[in-house]
Amino acid sequence: MSERLDDLQNGYHIYQETEDFCYGIDAVLLAHFAVMKERDSILDMGTGNGAVPLIMRAGAPEGVHFTGIEIQKKEVSLAKRSVSYNALEQDIDIVEGDLKEAASIFGAASFSLVTCNPPYMTENHGLINRTAPKAVARHELTCTLREIIESAAKVLETNGRFDMIHRPFRIAEIIRDLSEYGLEPKKLRFIFPFADKEPTMVLLEAVRGGKPRVKVYPPLIIYRAPGVYTDEILDIYGRNKA
Amino acid sequence: MSERLDDLQNGYHIYQETEDFCYGIDAVLLAHFAVMKERDSILDMGTGNGAVPLIMRAGAPEGVHFTGIEIQKKEVSLAKRSVSYNALEQDIDIVEGDLKEAASIFGAASFSLVTCNPPYMTENHGLINRTAPKAVARHELTCTLREIIESAAKVLETNGRFDMIHRPFRIAEIIRDLSEYGLEPKKLRFIFPFADKEPTMVLLEAVRGGKPRVKVYPPLIIYRAPGVYTDEILDIYGRNKA
Repeated sequence: MSERLDDLQNGYHIYQETEDFCYGIDAVLLAHFAVMKERDSILDMGTGNGAVPLIMRAGAPEGVHFTGIEIQKKEVSLAKRSVSYNALEQDIDIVEGDLKEAASIFGAASFSLVTCNPPYMTENHGLINRTAPKAVARHELTCTLREIIESAAKVLETNGRFDMIHRPFRIAEIIRDLSEYGLEPKKLRFIFPFADKEPTMVLLEAVRGGKPRVKVYPPLIIYRAPGVYTDEILDIYGRNKA
Repeated sequence: MSERLDDLQNGYHIYQETEDFCYGIDAVLLAHFAVMKERDSILDMGTGNGAVPLIMRAGAPEGVHFTGIEIQKKEVSLAKRSVSYNALEQDIDIVEGDLKEAASIFGAASFSLVTCNPPYMTENHGLINRTAPKAVARHELTCTLREIIESAAKVLETNGRFDMIHRPFRIAEIIRDLSEYGLEPKKLRFIFPFADKEPTMVLLEAVRGGKPRVKVYPPLIIYRAPGVYTDEILDIYGRNKA
C-alpha cells in the first residue's frame, strides 16, 4: 500500500494508490475536451479514483453536478475521500456500482453529459491478476466498449453528449457501436505524441439523436521535442489551476 | 472551350478543359495514398479526365492495369486522348459509363483495387447548371457516396482495397456505409491545410472482408507557411516525376 495525496493543480487534491493506478494524461485531456454547460448533470463511467470529475469541477459553470460510478471498492474509497477532502460533497457523488447497470441505478435519460475513460484493450493475454485495479482500468474485464456505449445511450437525455477517449485503432468499431445505439459522432480529435507520429489516442463526442456531421479538430500534439510539452498541453495543464 | 495539355511532371501529359474542371491536389494525394501491388487490377470510379490513373501509372509496379469509368462524354474524350498521347493504351482503359453499373459492365469481384475521388457535397443549392462538369465533379448529382461504396464492394475481390478521398465532416457516414457493404476501414489519414487548422480532406482505405483495426497516420500538413508547401507535399509532387 502506498497511498498518496496529490495536488491536482486546480485547487483540489486527489488520493491515489500509486501501486495500483494513477490518473494519466488521458483523464486530463478528456476532462478538458468535454464542454460543460450550466446545470449539466454529468455521469463519469468507471470513474476510478474520481480524477475526471475532480479535474472538470474546477472549470464547471454554475449548477453543474457530477456523479462518478465505479465497480472497484478500493477506487471508490479513494474517490469518496478525495471528494470529502475537497469539501465537494454537494457537487460530486461517488457511487459504487457496475456502469452496465447505470440506467437502473440512476434512471433512464437522467444525465445531460456522460464522460468515460474506458479500458482500451480487448485482449487480456499476459495478465497475471485479472482483479488488479491496473488490469481492470486497462483491459475490458468488467465491461466492453459496446456495453459502455449501450449504457451511456440509456442514461443520456435526448441531445445529451457522450465524451470519451480511446485508441485510434478502434475508431471504426467505436463509430459503428455509437451509431447502433443512437449516439451520433459529432467531434473527433486525434492526439499525436509528436507531429510526425501516428496518433496514440482519440477524443470523441457523440450526441444522442444528433444529425450526421462530424467536426474534426486540428491535431493535438503532446511533445514538441522529447520530454518538452507543446504550448497547447502546457495550456491544458495550466488550466487545471483554479 | 479552352483545352490545354498539361505536364503531369511524372513523364506523362494530361488534357484538361480549363473552363470545366482541372484535377487538383486531392487527385494527387489519393494517387499517392493508394498502395499498388504487382499485377493489381485497378478501377478508378468517376475518373474524369483520367488524372488518378495517369498519376498512379508512373509509380506502378509490374503488371498493373488501370480502368477508368466516367459518365461524362466530354471527360471521357479528354481521358482517352491523354491515354493515347502517352501511348498507354495497353495499361489504361477508359470506359464511358455509370459507375453504379460497374459490376454489370466489368463483372463482380473483378478488381483488386478501386480508387475514387468522388463529389464531396450532398446538397446542390446554388447550382445553376446541374449538367456542368464542375457541378457533377463536386456535387452528388449522378451518384451518392452510398451508391459508390455499394458499387465498389461489388466489383472488389475478397481482400480487395478501396481507396478514397473525402471530406472529414462525413467520416461517420463513410465508416457506416463502408461497414454496411462489407468494406472494413483499415487506413485513415487526415489532411490539414496548416498544422493548427481543422482538416479539409481525409484519405481512407477499406478492405473487403478485412478485420476491424484501423491504422491512423500522422497528420498530413499541406502548408508550413501561407503559400509554402511542407516537405511532405513537395516530396509527393516530386514523386510524380518518373
